[in-house]
Amino acid sequence: MKTLPMAHVYQMLEPGPVALLVTARDGKANVMTMSWHMMVEFEPPRIACIVSGADHSFTALRETGECVIAVPPASMAERVVEIGNCSGRDVDKFARFHLETKPAKLVAAPLLADCIANIECRVIDDSLVERFNLFVLEAVHSWINPALRAAPTLHHRGWGEFALDGEIIRLKSRMR
Amino acid sequence: MKTLPMAHVYQMLEPGPVALLVTARDGKANVMTMSWHMMVEFEPPRIACIVSGADHSFTALRETGECVIAVPPASMAERVVEIGNCSGRDVDKFARFHLETKPAKLVAAPLLADCIANIECRVIDDSLVERFNLFVLEAVHSWINPALRAAPTLHHRGWGEFALDGEIIRLKSRMR
Repeated sequence: MKTLPMAHVYQMLEPGPVALLVTARDGKANVMTMSWHMMVEFEPPRIACIVSGADHSFTALRETGECVIAVPPASMAERVVEIGNCSGRDVDKFARFHLETKPAKLVAAPLLADCIANIECRVIDDSLVERFNLFVLEAVHSWINPALRAAPTLHHRGWGEFALDGEIIRLKSRMR
Repeated sequence: MKTLPMAHVYQMLEPGPVALLVTARDGKANVMTMSWHMMVEFEPPRIACIVSGADHSFTALRETGECVIAVPPASMAERVVEIGNCSGRDVDKFARFHLETKPAKLVAAPLLADCIANIECRVIDDSLVERFNLFVLEAVHSWINPALRAAPTLHHRGWGEFALDGEIIRLKSRMR
């Protein structure tokens, strides 16, 4: 994995790919599937996400204020769904789904070696957690897997239906 | 356009398509391109989005507390980029880009007839507007264009590069 410049982080999340949220608490890591996230700021990259209070990851995120957001390639689709179908309360998802991890640089949660990008984050605002389960995160370091850079990602359309990235088009935009 | 059931609204936005945000203020409508949005709740459908204070739409959204989020098909890609390349301060984007509108049911902002879905929204939380330009909206009515339901959408990857929805896959998910 190579460092992904902070200025490029939004290009990983703005297209709305299904992501994996990795946390660690009391030395035990966990991972969940997440589709409710958006960019908030380019630099420093800030990201908002919704993590339900019913998710096992909620407590870890709330208590540690740290996580990794990983963007899986479409080739991981079956594992992405299986990760979402079970809870870290009951199983070690890393062992069950053969998820290779690497230590992060600045947070306790591990990186996922098979993902396109890994974004190390810290919670910077929890004022809407109580009302909406909405966390605002700031990226503190991020990683790109060059071999997977062009891999298609998954876009969830409900009930296990996903659109994969297809044709790429380029238009003259003045917008970043 | 047919009514889209509230329970299906998230399926339009969760996949992360580029959207159009339509507002109206003092009888004058405006539209901007938006990629920073996420689902917050299934039902009632709640949506968070970032609208920069530099955007002309910001004042209309702030003052009226109402908008329409429209999901354009990929066939509108050039107009979607052009809409983002100019400001409603300077031009009537509906006239310039030949955008056909229809009256909404519950908000003053109009619907975009050529879009896949139109979601009428009201602002329900503005507590993070000052810090992050983050609005939380609640859908009050929504519309689907049945003829465009299967149309691919656009996923922005930065600087005018878009991935179009490609292959559709279906996996056994216990998650909605």
